[in-house]
Order: sequence, then structure tokens, then C-alpha cells
Amino acid sequence: MSQKRIIRIGLLGFGVVGQGVWKNIEKNRQALEFRLGAQLDITEVVVKNASKPREVSVPVECYSTDPSRVVDNPEIDIVCEMMGGTGEALELTRRALKQGKVVVTANKALVCEHGEELFKIANENGGHYFYEASVAGGIPIIKTIREALVANRFKLIFGILNGTSNYILTRMEREGLSFEETLGDARQLGYVEADEALDLDGIDAAHKAVILAYLAHGKWVKLDEIICEGIREVSGTDIEIAGALGYKIKLLAVIARDFEANKLSVRLHPALIAKSEVIAGVDEVYNGVSVTGDVVGTTVLIGRGAGQDATSSSVISDIADAVFMIQGAPKPVISEEDEEVYRQLADGLELAVPADLAGRYYLRVHVKDEEGVLAKISNILAAHHISFATVNQKELADGTALIMLTTHASNETAVAAAKAALTAESVVVAAPVSLRIFEPSD
Amino acid sequence: MSQKRIIRIGLLGFGVVGQGVWKNIEKNRQALEFRLGAQLDITEVVVKNASKPREVSVPVECYSTDPSRVVDNPEIDIVCEMMGGTGEALELTRRALKQGKVVVTANKALVCEHGEELFKIANENGGHYFYEASVAGGIPIIKTIREALVANRFKLIFGILNGTSNYILTRMEREGLSFEETLGDARQLGYVEADEALDLDGIDAAHKAVILAYLAHGKWVKLDEIICEGIREVSGTDIEIAGALGYKIKLLAVIARDFEANKLSVRLHPALIAKSEVIAGVDEVYNGVSVTGDVVGTTVLIGRGAGQDATSSSVISDIADAVFMIQGAPKPVISEEDEEVYRQLADGLELAVPADLAGRYYLRVHVKDEEGVLAKISNILAAHHISFATVNQKELADGTALIMLTTHASNETAVAAAKAALTAESVVVAAPVSLRIFEPSD
Repeated sequence: MSQKRIIRIGLLGFGVVGQGVWKNIEKNRQALEFRLGAQLDITEVVVKNASKPREVSVPVECYSTDPSRVVDNPEIDIVCEMMGGTGEALELTRRALKQGKVVVTANKALVCEHGEELFKIANENGGHYFYEASVAGGIPIIKTIREALVANRFKLIFGILNGTSNYILTRMEREGLSFEETLGDARQLGYVEADEALDLDGIDAAHKAVILAYLAHGKWVKLDEIICEGIREVSGTDIEIAGALGYKIKLLAVIARDFEANKLSVRLHPALIAKSEVIAGVDEVYNGVSVTGDVVGTTVLIGRGAGQDATSSSVISDIADAVFMIQGAPKPVISEEDEEVYRQLADGLELAVPADLAGRYYLRVHVKDEEGVLAKISNILAAHHISFATVNQKELADGTALIMLTTHASNETAVAAAKAALTAESVVVAAPVSLRIFEPSD
Repeated sequence: MSQKRIIRIGLLGFGVVGQGVWKNIEKNRQALEFRLGAQLDITEVVVKNASKPREVSVPVECYSTDPSRVVDNPEIDIVCEMMGGTGEALELTRRALKQGKVVVTANKALVCEHGEELFKIANENGGHYFYEASVAGGIPIIKTIREALVANRFKLIFGILNGTSNYILTRMEREGLSFEETLGDARQLGYVEADEALDLDGIDAAHKAVILAYLAHGKWVKLDEIICEGIREVSGTDIEIAGALGYKIKLLAVIARDFEANKLSVRLHPALIAKSEVIAGVDEVYNGVSVTGDVVGTTVLIGRGAGQDATSSSVISDIADAVFMIQGAPKPVISEEDEEVYRQLADGLELAVPADLAGRYYLRVHVKDEEGVLAKISNILAAHHISFATVNQKELADGTALIMLTTHASNETAVAAAKAALTAESVVVAAPVSLRIFEPSD
């Protein structure tokens, strides 16, 4: 057998994903090294506490608490940043990339918030920043958009990018549970991030949407420029009514480009989606992404969006690409760091403002159960040029009622104004809740 | 703008896919060339008849009827074999690879039947043989298995790999049509290959299953060693009964590896699959592939399995990889031509014989509508150790009846013997039809 080149890897952080990378490289080491034509040595593992017991057995000399043994070590070929967060991880990633290293990350918050700077540093210093594991765990969505669908421009990318909220919505639907009950279970199963807003307010999925928008369209979008709404307002009643109307409720990331107007809409919100759509069938902790290219048509990828093994599968795929790059391959096909490419891709591209969004809506209005209440509501909606397609009413034990409507085509401004007007109406007992109806064929 | 390297491409054949490649490179040429850092020139288009009108406009000097202008031309960097068939295409592919060229193909029959020889020639002469478009059209299943899931070994790969038969089964299900009625429509829409056996007897999908088996497991399987059955025997009644029991009937390719016994099962046959499986929801002309890796878990890819644009999207993706290879990248991660790698991957791996297959079955028995007929059938099944889980009976206008059974776990040998015994029974008016029930979690 020929002598293989040794590739030295340093891990920053050794939590769930870091240990998964170690474990799974060991698991299939022989096949992996055959395929790569290289030997993979994880020589440095930087941790906060070297004596903490871990599920994998690592030679004691690999451990240190000193990140410079990875970041500033000329013998390290690939830096895997598996520590998470945007503090020390940013500083160390920056330092490694400045030295021309190849960095592999699963850190969506860091790529989303600082990707623009980090890709630039990578590009200027001859390294590369790989981030497959940062979006949709084990689903190879980055490689698919960047390489497999390189012939395409992307009119629409949408999907489910947060497993925890999908798990909650699935159990609410299947078991008729409330949001709070299901959340309790999800917490017990360890599915919810320590910072619960990441999962429940859509921030985690929005981070991923921002990364996909950049990958596909070369434009960095800020979270505060886009619609980012989580699942806290979705009730069991909403799911039930949506189901009866042929919809599921899913937390959707949507990246839609209008090539004629040269506008890009990036958003993250729960939405009603027809059960006949493949993405509507993506349940439990699974993620799914639907990509519509102008050549390939629509391709859908479904898989585990998180978890030690799925995420480390993607990290190892990036390590493989890094090994090829180190052996002489050009950087990946879409050169994310190349400003010229991205200026061109995003040339004149404007971000659609939230108010631009149009479509059909679902509205839940909590009212006093009085005569004429539906007429009052329809008058208010009509005043905002909103007509409705379906109406359902549900009596509550306390003598109030819920009125659930779906509308014909309307828009954000009209719906917001109508909701404000409804809230001010004396028969309305709580601020109405609205959900968008997502129709990918539009 | 920096001067880009010019990559010269020659097309062998200019039918539906060849014209799609031309059209779609033109369509997104600017973005594509930016991403590749190279200029793509299709300088030679070899056709049988240069004066035939075509949907794309090609400079007249590109056309010739002489394949040596592509295959033996030192200026051509990439040969796209878009002619199909296993005659001249084989001879020209062999000749191009012998000269160290990179060849891109969409020709599943050629890869399936002669891949072993062609990958060997490519490897010995420093070229490469790219074949993404040969399996599942626009779905990037080759790149996904080879690169994105490089960390994995594959316990199970299964799915729908022939759009025409899926279209027929979908319409039979939705509209209650017979196989013959739907086939007529499919023919009119141009969905059925000139050689209808390719679509209807499962051969096209079996070609693709053989390619995936090789990619994932390094073993070339011959079509005559495996179960390869098409959809001609599936009736509307089967679909209806399956539906009532919670199943769809799909033409499935299955590549299952038992790592403990080191056995590989490759097969292609219609099967009942639970509606809750994602693949069961892949309808119309769509293809879908479910890949279960030992690290990533299960990932499903769904998309257009054929057609000019989807197929050319995959061809262009291979051209992109070829351009990177020409610019210095090592060959793709799983080096299909590397005998050492594949000896290792397939070391000691044995092909499961069809008789090894076990599972549950669906049986349709056409009988005289006499007293005691069900008892007779159950006695025959019991004699072959087959017990049944469900029974449905349907009276026919001519006084005969159909009995549809699903069985508990059984196996190929027992079912074949039971079918022979049933055929010999006087109350049975036609040879029984059996379908396998596919349960991926097994």
C-alpha cells in the first residue's frame, strides 16, 4: 500500500458534536482513509476541562486547554471549531483563517453573524471556511446547492430547518397536546437549546436561512431586516383547523428570489402548507429543504437536522473536502469568499421589505359569543380589502368563541392593520393571531 | 476581470439531453463561469445528421458527423457522451478514456453493463468517468453518496428510480385506471422509452440500482443475478386493496447490505410500502432515493428523475467537477476506478441470492367462487408455512372471485412453492400474483 499523506486535525471544543466527529472517524476510519487517500490524525483536542469524563476515549496527550495549540500550530492542517457561540469561537476562527488555515464549523450563529468577515479573511489568506454542518445537520444542502446544482439559479428555497420546533408541532398535531405540554416533553428529552429563544422564536432556523440565502444569492441579510417569528403563538386549535382544511402548520424558512424585479425575500415563520407538499410530510425532529432551480426543477432533501451523528457526518464530509483542497483541489465550486463572484451574483439585488409580502392568511380571532360578531369581523376585514375563503367557529367553555378564517390574497400591511382594528373592537377579547399560508407554486 | 482558462467540450450526440446541456450552459453561462473560474466552450457537436432542425441554435462549424473530432482531438478537455446505447457509445467512450480524457455520461445502460471495464481504463490512463446523470436524473444521488455521505457505510439504499412506471402507478391509483389505459397515455406523452421493456419490466431502474450498488459497495452485480420485475402484473385491484391496508404500490430499487453476514442484496420489483414512508409519497414522474448511513441516519432525496433540463443539470454538475479536476483537483472522493479501494470495500462481500429474501407478501389469487375455496387456499399456504395477516375478497362479474391476502413473514422459496401449488389447484383459475411488502425498518 502506498504511503498516505498525514492530515492533522485540531478540534476546538469537545462536546456532543466534537465527540461525534472523533467517534465516527474512528468508526469508519479504514474506508474513509481509502477514499481520501490520506491518513486523518486528530492530534489536538482543546477543551475547557481536560479531566471531565467523556464518552470517547482520547489519548491524554491530545487534550489541552490551550486553543493556540490548534489555531497557531503550523502542523495543524484543519481546524474544527466545535465550541459554538460567537465569542471565543469568532476570535479563534478569525485567528486560524488569518494564518491561512482551513476551518470546518457547525456554528450557524457564527456563520450567520460573522460569515461576511470570516469568508473575506479566508479568501485573503488562502484558507477556506467550510460550514456544511451549520445548516440542517446531516442533510447535504450546502454541497447540493454549491456543487450538485451549480447549473441553476434559485427561484425558491424553503423548508424546515429546526428539528425542535418541528418535533413540538408534530406532537401537538398527532396527540392534540398544547404547546406548553409538548415543550415540557421536548425539554426533558434534551431537544431544546439552553437559550430557548433559538428554537422557539425561530432564531436558530433564521440563522440557517440567512446562510442559505448567502450561498444561493451572494447577499448577507441581517436578522433584524427580516420576518423572524417562532411557534409560541401556534395553538392546538390552529393545527386542528388547518388540518381540516388540508394543511399542516410548519415553521418554514423561505428564501424566494424574484429575478425580474431582482428582489430577495428571506423569512422565517410558522405557516400553513398544503399536506400534498412533500415538506408538509417532514415530521418529528426531521428537517427538509425544497430547492427549486431554473434548470433542475424542484429537488427535496430530507434528513436528520441535528444530533451528534448526523451533524458529525456533515463535519466529516467537510473534512474530506478540506483534505482534497489541501491535496491541490481548487476551493469549492461556489467560491464564497470571492467578492467578484458575489458582487456579480447579487448585483443590484434588493432585499424585499417585510411589507412587500403578499399571499393568503389564516386568522384566529377570540371573541365574545354575541349575535352579529361575525358580521362585525367581516366588515372590519372588508374595510382592509380582505375577503375570506373559509370560516370556522369554536365555542369555548367560558362563553367566548374562537373564529378561524382563511383569507383570499392579501398582504402584510392590510393584515396588520386589520388585526389592530380587530383588537380595538369591543367584541374581540384578545389580540388576533395570524399565520401565513405558504403556497410554493405562487 | 482575470483571464479564465478555456475548457473545450465535445458532445457526442445531440438529442434531448445534448441539446439541454447546450441550452442550459448558455442560459446561466455567466454565473456558471464565475463559479468555475473557467470559460466553457462547446466546440464540437457530433451528430448523425447535421442538417436536422434542432431547438437550439449552434454555429454550423461546430457540427460534424465524425466522432474522432471529439474523441481523438487533443484540444477537447471534456467528452460528453449523450448518444446512449451500448454499441458505438461503448467504443467511443473506451477510445476517449484510453487517451486520458474526462468523459461525462448520462448513459445508465453503458455504466451498468460496462462500467467495470470503463472505470478501469479511466484509472489506468489518468482520466475520469463521471456519471451523475445516469441515475435519477436531476437528483444528485451520486455526489451525495460519494462525497456528502463519505463518513458513512450504507446499510440500506432504496427508492423509485424510473419515472415512467411511477407515473403509470400514480395514475392507476388516483384515477382507478387499468395498467393498459394508463400505458396508452404515457406513450402519447412520450414518457415511454422506444424499448418499452426498459420502463415496464424494470430494466432501466435495475441499471441504476446496479450503479448505486457499485458506488456504495464496490461490487458489480449482473442483471441476471438479481430479482428484476416490472409493473406489468400490478392491477388496479392490487393498488386499491393495498391502499385500504395503508400501503402504496411502488416500483422499488433496493440495495441492502448486511454487514454482519457481509451480504449484499440488490433487487428491483414492485412492492407494497407503508404510506407513512416518505418514498411512498413520491408520485407522478418524480424519483426518490432513501439512503441510510451508519452515521447520518436516513436521508431522502426527491426530484425529477428524467427530462431534458433535470438531466442536463446533473451533466453540467459533472462538467463542473471535471473542470475542477482539470484545474488540479484530485479525482472525486470515492475513486471508483481504484481497484485497491474497491477490493477493500467489497472484501469478501457476497451477493445474496434471490432465494435468501424474506419478508411479508401480498398475494392475489383468482378463484372459482365456490364454497370452501378460502379453506383450500389457506391449507395450501399452511402447508408452505405461510400464515396470513389480512384477507379481502372481490366478486367478479363472471362468477369468479379475487382473493387478496397479506402474509406474515415468509420467504421467496415458500411463496414460489405455494404459488405453484395454488396454480395446480382446480378452484384456482389463473396463476396467482404475488407482490413483496417492503418494510425499511426491518
